[in-house]
Amino acid sequence: MEVSVLFSGGKDSSLAAVILSALPYFSKKSREGSTFFEVELVTCSFGVLSNWKQAEKVAKKLGFPFRVLKLKKEILNEAARQVIKDGFPNNGIKYIHQKALEAVAKKSEIIADGIRRDDRVPVLSLAEIRRLEDKFDVHYIQPLMGYSRKTIDLLVKQFFIVKEYKSTSFFKGAEYEFELREIIRKGYGIRKIKEIFPKNHSHSIVKEVKSRG
Amino acid sequence: MEVSVLFSGGKDSSLAAVILSALPYFSKKSREGSTFFEVELVTCSFGVLSNWKQAEKVAKKLGFPFRVLKLKKEILNEAARQVIKDGFPNNGIKYIHQKALEAVAKKSEIIADGIRRDDRVPVLSLAEIRRLEDKFDVHYIQPLMGYSRKTIDLLVKQFFIVKEYKSTSFFKGAEYEFELREIIRKGYGIRKIKEIFPKNHSHSIVKEVKSRG
Repeated sequence: MEVSVLFSGGKDSSLAAVILSALPYFSKKSREGSTFFEVELVTCSFGVLSNWKQAEKVAKKLGFPFRVLKLKKEILNEAARQVIKDGFPNNGIKYIHQKALEAVAKKSEIIADGIRRDDRVPVLSLAEIRRLEDKFDVHYIQPLMGYSRKTIDLLVKQFFIVKEYKSTSFFKGAEYEFELREIIRKGYGIRKIKEIFPKNHSHSIVKEVKSRG
Repeated sequence: MEVSVLFSGGKDSSLAAVILSALPYFSKKSREGSTFFEVELVTCSFGVLSNWKQAEKVAKKLGFPFRVLKLKKEILNEAARQVIKDGFPNNGIKYIHQKALEAVAKKSEIIADGIRRDDRVPVLSLAEIRRLEDKFDVHYIQPLMGYSRKTIDLLVKQFFIVKEYKSTSFFKGAEYEFELREIIRKGYGIRKIKEIFPKNHSHSIVKEVKSRG
């Protein structure tokens, strides 16, 4: 049974993938033995930056198959308009995440992401989650939803060596924020970026994977 | 690394235990190899019924160590008063669950339960979860929180043969509800039970564990 995990190369989506890949799954053919969930990593790109390559590098280290899912640039433009209107990035990023989930759901039976219990963005409401599952007849798993930041940190240390970056360093991961910032910079100027995006937000990239034993 | 899972013998807490036991954990001594999370199943009892024995049977089938944690009867009495006052069981059951989590947290570094995304009872708020984690310096994991009922059903079918019971059948699992009903029956009469507890609520017990491969 295959599960498609939305993947940025950061510690959360990497941990989500590892947790799912540890789940045994009994194949229909042979009730005796069992295989495990087969994880496929999916990184979305609007073609504005090539930061998906960073995610691809991490995917190789994790040892999971990887693919890039091209999303329509109109989605990014709409998210940028939303962010400019709001004066803060949350709703725009959530909009991108919803569209990414929908795009993956079209071709997969089980989809997943690295959203945590303590995340504020991009968190879907329970109603939105159910709508997605019903509309696309898909299983949507958020493997980290029942874990606190403290517990995630404990587990991440088990598996990965991680580097944390400030959001101002571009190209260091495949979070939606990077292409969103780039298109806002192009369309509205660098000043808007400074106005809108929080300065002290940091993100992570997995640099090394410890032996998975 | 040991994790104590609050356990009723039902499908949710059984699945939570299996998911956690599949998580690799690198021991401090040997960074090379890895062990897995060691699951211990903990069933709470107020000594009113002996339905914890049902949970013990399931624990043996799962192959995890099992212990009964005796809770003070005053907790059950307080929950019963709450239920009588409210006219519905939700807050009383949540109160017991909080006290059970606290009791387990006193002696464990990592605690867990089988609460699902779609559960309404006994769900702690994010603030209550954080208070628990801070007060007892504990990791509280809800492994099933990011899974829908549909996905849980898919996974449960992989691992277990499950039997569903109506709540009216006593002694068929170690959910808090049974001892709570019993003490309300004794103190307030059988009519109160019929008034207060929903008729069509069912609960599950794991009857058989498929080869874990």
